[in-house]
Amino acid sequence: MASVLIVYATDYGNTKAMAEVIAAGVATVPGVTATLKTADEAVSQDINAHDALVLGSPVHMGSPDWRVKKFIDTQCSGVWMRDTGVGKVGAVFGTGSGFGSAGGGIEVTLLALLNNLAELGMLLVPLPKNTPGYTKGGLQWGPYGRTGDEKLNPIGLQPDQLEAARGHGANIARVTAAVAGKKLLGG
Amino acid sequence: MASVLIVYATDYGNTKAMAEVIAAGVATVPGVTATLKTADEAVSQDINAHDALVLGSPVHMGSPDWRVKKFIDTQCSGVWMRDTGVGKVGAVFGTGSGFGSAGGGIEVTLLALLNNLAELGMLLVPLPKNTPGYTKGGLQWGPYGRTGDEKLNPIGLQPDQLEAARGHGANIARVTAAVAGKKLLGG
Amino acid sequence: MASVLIVYATDYGNTKAMAEVIAAGVATVPGVTATLKTADEAVSQDINAHDALVLGSPVHMGSPDWRVKKFIDTQCSGVWMRDTGVGKVGAVFGTGSGFGSAGGGIEVTLLALLNNLAELGMLLVPLPKNTPGYTKGGLQWGPYGRTGDEKLNPIGLQPDQLEAARGHGANIARVTAAVAGKKLLGG
Amino acid sequence: MASVLIVYATDYGNTKAMAEVIAAGVATVPGVTATLKTADEAVSQDINAHDALVLGSPVHMGSPDWRVKKFIDTQCSGVWMRDTGVGKVGAVFGTGSGFGSAGGGIEVTLLALLNNLAELGMLLVPLPKNTPGYTKGGLQWGPYGRTGDEKLNPIGLQPDQLEAARGHGANIARVTAAVAGKKLLGG
Repeated sequence: MASVLIVYATDYGNTKAMAEVIAAGVATVPGVTATLKTADEAVSQDINAHDALVLGSPVHMGSPDWRVKKFIDTQCSGVWMRDTGVGKVGAVFGTGSGFGSAGGGIEVTLLALLNNLAELGMLLVPLPKNTPGYTKGGLQWGPYGRTGDEKLNPIGLQPDQLEAARGHGANIARVTAAVAGKKLLGG
Repeated sequence: MASVLIVYATDYGNTKAMAEVIAAGVATVPGVTATLKTADEAVSQDINAHDALVLGSPVHMGSPDWRVKKFIDTQCSGVWMRDTGVGKVGAVFGTGSGFGSAGGGIEVTLLALLNNLAELGMLLVPLPKNTPGYTKGGLQWGPYGRTGDEKLNPIGLQPDQLEAARGHGANIARVTAAVAGKKLLGG
Repeated sequence: MASVLIVYATDYGNTKAMAEVIAAGVATVPGVTATLKTADEAVSQDINAHDALVLGSPVHMGSPDWRVKKFIDTQCSGVWMRDTGVGKVGAVFGTGSGFGSAGGGIEVTLLALLNNLAELGMLLVPLPKNTPGYTKGGLQWGPYGRTGDEKLNPIGLQPDQLEAARGHGANIARVTAAVAGKKLLGG
Repeated sequence: MASVLIVYATDYGNTKAMAEVIAAGVATVPGVTATLKTADEAVSQDINAHDALVLGSPVHMGSPDWRVKKFIDTQCSGVWMRDTGVGKVGAVFGTGSGFGSAGGGIEVTLLALLNNLAELGMLLVPLPKNTPGYTKGGLQWGPYGRTGDEKLNPIGLQPDQLEAARGHGANIARVTAAVAGKKLLGG
């Protein structure tokens, strides 16, 4: 058995909806389970109790929501200090209005989240472009739920985005099942 | 009189077309001129002979075209070594197919170009969101000519993108006119 | 008269000390004043009331402190929405233990802060390498107060770092004086 | 049997020396072999013939050497187009003078290389902080051979850096052995 922890913040429910779809994708892989927590409720012991950590956030001014950052500063830092995340699996996803028709800051937002996972010593799962839904649903770092058109009008999560998120969950689950409990990284 | 050097590489002519529109935008500001050079032909003396450096590139695998990188490695590095770019003005732009509907790597590509300009000690001009054309034509770091739809079908440069590029040129020219010849930065 | 707002968070006083030195550097330029506020107390009206915004943060897991991010999410976002920061001046600085002898995450931390300033439409002031103190005191994006050795032992702020911070303040002030009140960017 | 391809460019031999040490680290893991190629000689078929791709570069103006970028643009792009790198293992390393005492641009350089590997759909191996040699030998994204002091005087590769590089090779080899030939990612 392997388990995946998904931690997110949500403003209008879109990031929560994506987190749930990723969890559903995880659950399609036999022997792997998913747990959902908000950034406000997750603690460092939750990270220690799972084999993978998936972080999701709305884009705010080109970087993660401050509640996710608070989780990173106050909970992930202790995991970093004690090396208890080393060799686990990490992945990310995001949502945003996409203002400007060029991603709206999603790329640097996902990099900030991945940076934290890299510091924890986790294997990072990207979103391969042959993952179903990719063409409208994401970028190389993870799925992206763009919920607005170029004029900031809300359009909600699109089917392709949810499909990419589901595929991301399955990808993460397969990697986690392959490496959980093995001591592959570090000293 | 102030002058702007625009250095770019182009695959199918789109980046060249954007460079020309930015030059046209520069020329709308009285007293400021623009010079266009490809990354293959520009040399360090060209940088020294102008008050601003604008770099443009197609996105290739999430970072600038290798010809632009060669220009940076072989020509900008000498300017860096001698501090002759300090206090000048820098700005960037890019083009790409936009595969994936989330920018297709434009954000990290423009950051790589800006990184070089920051190392040269240049004042960096972003693309404010109230620049005409922004909503379809760019991101915070500069204009983006997305020339494909989400399935990689070519659609060419769009009018809004060219408008954002023109506005970027005018923004750059106004900043260059305001700071050229003043010793604002460094030791 | 031109004025610079410096917003920071601090854990042990190092980031506060750097903020104060930057303010002292600003004050060396005639006609430019500096105001210091913590990320907890600064509000969007403070940004609107000044000609430049300088953001400083400790590095936490490779990105800015969550209190700075909260300021960005809750205060800068309104400035972004109304374009009231466009054409102002922006700059950044950071502190950290520097664990790992390769910057300890300062580069991506400063980029996250600059990303916010770029979204606000601000002219970005880098740290030119001929700014006094640079060789031990910073990187291209701004001064860096590395307060630990490679084993995380605290060593405090170093004289070269404070010199780079002071020079950064003077650089920012000169740029602010040159562009304040002019309408150089945007629509 | 699993195999790792290491592709690098070198100026004065430091990056080559690090590549060789990483290869030696790979070889400490039974059943995993390493192949070394320069960026000038490696082609897309080499990537297809191995289970992992490790990219190494000197830092030049805050991003990878143009020869590595040319390899990415001309060879990795075909692998991307055909999805033949999906689910393989990717990792990075770098060298540089470290000018400025804050990494000298290594962080964004390694991110640019990782960006390419993420676009190829590869599992990314970070450098956990409990990898021997980390405290002087690297950062979260990979080992860093800082070969100069803060005044750009050459000091050569340090023992801790080589130890971190060797551990990185072993980490990469163990991950590659665990996932090679399994279809974990993509559609």
